[in-house]
Amino acid sequence: MDYLKEKIRTIPHWPRQGVMFRDITTLLKDPKGLSQAISHLYDRYKEMNINVVAGIESRGFIHGAILAEKLGVGFVPIRKKGKLPGETLQEEYNLEYGSDALEIHTDAINQGDNVLIVDDLIATAGTSLAAVNLINRLGGNVIECSFIIELPDLKGREKLEQNGIKVFSLIKFEGD
Amino acid sequence: MDYLKEKIRTIPHWPRQGVMFRDITTLLKDPKGLSQAISHLYDRYKEMNINVVAGIESRGFIHGAILAEKLGVGFVPIRKKGKLPGETLQEEYNLEYGSDALEIHTDAINQGDNVLIVDDLIATAGTSLAAVNLINRLGGNVIECSFIIELPDLKGREKLEQNGIKVFSLIKFEGD
Repeated sequence: MDYLKEKIRTIPHWPRQGVMFRDITTLLKDPKGLSQAISHLYDRYKEMNINVVAGIESRGFIHGAILAEKLGVGFVPIRKKGKLPGETLQEEYNLEYGSDALEIHTDAINQGDNVLIVDDLIATAGTSLAAVNLINRLGGNVIECSFIIELPDLKGREKLEQNGIKVFSLIKFEGD
Repeated sequence: MDYLKEKIRTIPHWPRQGVMFRDITTLLKDPKGLSQAISHLYDRYKEMNINVVAGIESRGFIHGAILAEKLGVGFVPIRKKGKLPGETLQEEYNLEYGSDALEIHTDAINQGDNVLIVDDLIATAGTSLAAVNLINRLGGNVIECSFIIELPDLKGREKLEQNGIKVFSLIKFEGD
């Protein structure tokens, strides 16, 4: 994963002072980097009997959609509130200041579907846990939450695992 | 394209009274629909010597990223203002009331890159034209603007073609 990690650009103090932002766009625009990242993820998931890939808005749409198409399954977007036009379920999650909410179409998941949840990065896992709750409320089985980047110091993995959810990431940045 | 068109859900009066919203999520979640749509697009673009696929936030990320990976090229996100962490160029575009802006990282495109611009739907083409301008300002060649859905009555194709840009769509909904 050294090549992939090198392709992640770090932008200090964005979106605010003190945050080291891990920018995935420099990996995505690199054909070899994009291809390698997808290849690792596809190899991991191709035998897991996944029926649906759910990507979290909006960076989770990018490799989530690629994975869905390669696995031969459907892609479901999990979006910020007010973006999906059909009937939705909503889950709130806490931010540093205040809260926000994710939504999913109520007809997006069938009872018993094996769902892979995808986002670009796991930090505190607030959004991931909201996404898990949405899938569970629709009767889906969350097979795993899958990320390109993990910030282990922020303990998102522990939060998901305490809720019985498996976690996978390609690259870790310690000390964030 | 009949199968693909059937898989698009129409939601009347969303996001406001009088609009027939063409919802692509019902196509994306259908494995056969997703696979067929991508197959048509891949067949069209595989011989066009494209170097980069640029997807417009956020539904353009979905099939744009899939196409990029299948073509073996990089994927570049074009985002709403304030979302990209690095140095950006910005282009404003008009909305029905007021205006908004798109941004691209200044290092996302190299001089002479052959760029395919992707979004889910073309209506009046305001956002597409802003995306074209961003690519041009970075020295890229826009090979084509590619959409899943076209609303021909809103004349977006004419607007792009008047600017020398080729346009392709998989499905047309007349009378919108």
